[in-house]
Amino acid sequence: MTLRIPEVDIIFEIRSRHRPGILGKIFSVIGSEGGLVGDITTKFVGKTHSVRDITISVFDVEHQHRIEQAIAELTDAEILQIRDPVFERHKGGKIHSGRTSDIRTLADFRYVYTPGVARVCTTVRDNPAKAREYTGIANSVGIFTNGTRVLGLGDIGALASLPLMEGKALLYDQFVGISATPMLIETKDPEKFVEVVEQISPSFGGIHLEDIRNPDCFYIEDELIRRLHKPVMHNDQHGTATIVLAAVMSAMAHIGHRFDQRLTVAQIGLGAAGFGIAKLLIDYGVNVIGFDPSEEARKRLGMLGGKETTMEEALSGADIVIAATGVPGLIKPDMIRKGQIIFALSNPVPEIYPEEAIDAGAAFAADGRQINNALAYPGLLKAALEMDIDQITPKMKMAAATAIFELTEPDELVPDPLRPEVHKKIVEAVKKSR
Amino acid sequence: MTLRIPEVDIIFEIRSRHRPGILGKIFSVIGSEGGLVGDITTKFVGKTHSVRDITISVFDVEHQHRIEQAIAELTDAEILQIRDPVFERHKGGKIHSGRTSDIRTLADFRYVYTPGVARVCTTVRDNPAKAREYTGIANSVGIFTNGTRVLGLGDIGALASLPLMEGKALLYDQFVGISATPMLIETKDPEKFVEVVEQISPSFGGIHLEDIRNPDCFYIEDELIRRLHKPVMHNDQHGTATIVLAAVMSAMAHIGHRFDQRLTVAQIGLGAAGFGIAKLLIDYGVNVIGFDPSEEARKRLGMLGGKETTMEEALSGADIVIAATGVPGLIKPDMIRKGQIIFALSNPVPEIYPEEAIDAGAAFAADGRQINNALAYPGLLKAALEMDIDQITPKMKMAAATAIFELTEPDELVPDPLRPEVHKKIVEAVKKSR
Repeated sequence: MTLRIPEVDIIFEIRSRHRPGILGKIFSVIGSEGGLVGDITTKFVGKTHSVRDITISVFDVEHQHRIEQAIAELTDAEILQIRDPVFERHKGGKIHSGRTSDIRTLADFRYVYTPGVARVCTTVRDNPAKAREYTGIANSVGIFTNGTRVLGLGDIGALASLPLMEGKALLYDQFVGISATPMLIETKDPEKFVEVVEQISPSFGGIHLEDIRNPDCFYIEDELIRRLHKPVMHNDQHGTATIVLAAVMSAMAHIGHRFDQRLTVAQIGLGAAGFGIAKLLIDYGVNVIGFDPSEEARKRLGMLGGKETTMEEALSGADIVIAATGVPGLIKPDMIRKGQIIFALSNPVPEIYPEEAIDAGAAFAADGRQINNALAYPGLLKAALEMDIDQITPKMKMAAATAIFELTEPDELVPDPLRPEVHKKIVEAVKKSR
Repeated sequence: MTLRIPEVDIIFEIRSRHRPGILGKIFSVIGSEGGLVGDITTKFVGKTHSVRDITISVFDVEHQHRIEQAIAELTDAEILQIRDPVFERHKGGKIHSGRTSDIRTLADFRYVYTPGVARVCTTVRDNPAKAREYTGIANSVGIFTNGTRVLGLGDIGALASLPLMEGKALLYDQFVGISATPMLIETKDPEKFVEVVEQISPSFGGIHLEDIRNPDCFYIEDELIRRLHKPVMHNDQHGTATIVLAAVMSAMAHIGHRFDQRLTVAQIGLGAAGFGIAKLLIDYGVNVIGFDPSEEARKRLGMLGGKETTMEEALSGADIVIAATGVPGLIKPDMIRKGQIIFALSNPVPEIYPEEAIDAGAAFAADGRQINNALAYPGLLKAALEMDIDQITPKMKMAAATAIFELTEPDELVPDPLRPEVHKKIVEAVKKSR
């Protein structure tokens, strides 16, 4: 059973005659071809015709072409134009490093630039802590990646991951007002990666690591935490772990229970995300059992205090199962124990679709799509920068997760990240946790 | 004879009684202490008193205190507050890397972030040139420094030069709309510097090098030009050379002549700026003679086709003398030949003050203060990025210099960089020069 739904939105600009049932006709043609009708915007209404932008979700370009052909053949509507809203949205990039105010006068020029700036420079030279006051560094983050393990895409390289890094930077700005800059590093050698980040680190108040392959990501993060006196966070581990902890709390609430320390959680897949989740759950105090095909990964879990086991035992022995394996369909319905909570996080296709898991007896099930990672990292880094501390501790992550859980509406698993107060409250909670 | 003028602006908020001559009294006290009265803003006019912000240029903190004391002792005005407009202007930093538009809806979120962004990433992976279209890279510059040779301050280190680098980034944005990011590199080893820039270079469309000590700056620039397929420019050399060439054209026009290839220019001091100037003048076709205490520097001039000579011969044999030595008062009045043009560029104190040079018979004289480097680099890099080329050629620098010269008003040496059309015209001229 495949529950795959089309995810690529394409805007069809369609001109059609006024005639009863014409829209219904168009929609049924789209539907019978497997397209999903989304937003509709009426752009023009004339005496005999209308023009509408109809957003249709398709699987891929071939699917889009089939729908185009079907509309042309089976209706008398005319496709005027086809647009891809994703590429339109990314045109020219999504971020810009710009001035916070204009230089308007000669005096202002002399204050901002030569000769005035020299006094600010010497002040920082004599007292480096003053950089927090007289530069933007205290509110800045570098987002470092080599693009070796991009969610759902694998090793696409540094440059190809820039659209995603710009997206992370955009969210930093919109959610918590942090000035973030994508830093693409052209190396797969973890030692070299560490050196480059170390060398460039004076430029930023915080270091965000993203989409670096496993196990390099562990070495890189540990080493940078050891070498730098500023917050360093590998988002795939800790951002993910934070939001998953919140979602687990929320899932328990949905089935009428509290997430407490007597529960057993099985973590299937101990890559960056899985390891980060297991670690935070162990810090939280629950019993964690886990499996990964890699012996090295299983050992890492053992060193944390988790219990290595087989996949079968993990699944049968846990109250909550969290899978982050990258293997589509890994969990079969007959492996599910009645009443379990199942999180199958791999993208774009999960280990088991939530509907399948529920049909198989799970009390609650979710996939990665429902757990928006963008909720965790902005607030964690913002709090660390505001507090001027050099560690993002388990306590801070737990405080963020609890805040996210408490902000969740009854019908949600996690809150809508576009609610403006959400991030402010996460920052406050993390700051209070210290 | 010292012609030093106070350059540090301090705002004195002064409350004084309405009484004939009170302002005159205050101003003469300031003047007799050597302070220079600048802008005056009336903030409050009451029945018996007024409050004004009076900007006073002072030499240093001690001088400021002497003026404070004199005002308190010799007038009955009251100083309510003293503010430093420079530090006020730098508070919190001067640039911010932020979003170019908001995410407002769930659909928008899916286009900008997951899952939509994955299609943009794979497009760039399959065709890296698409990064110019779907990311901000084509309009971005990294400003790299290790702070080992900051104008007038020397080796202050990377972090302390951040206020200056933010200033450069601010000007990039305001003048030509480039997204620029200060990149502070924590090394004095030129080989390591090159490696770090190379590793991080995918992040930017252009590489701006700034305030790196000599001779490392030459090696670093040459090596990066060789290794990277994108424009690399050491601003201390080429930005400075471009604006100095424009100023020389302008100085010649002021004395009623054209700057032509039969002239001889003496370049005194062959560090980054001096070498860059000599190189561009040789490319332009004039006869360049030069002197520097370093044999290595003199050799570099010889290899370019310039003539090594002594300082005395350089001064006596040239129509135009350009000094960039960092040595205050190096040129004595009796070294000046009648009718010469003298540019004494060292900051904050020049090799000879323009007034002294004129008194000694120079036909025209200027110092570094009059030659605003901020005119050249924004347009040069903008043109290179728009043309998508990987070299900033002598022809482009000459085109920029000629455009700057042609934009100069009759009473100026170079145009006011705050005139908005100036940079647009420089960009156009550089693009046409190809």
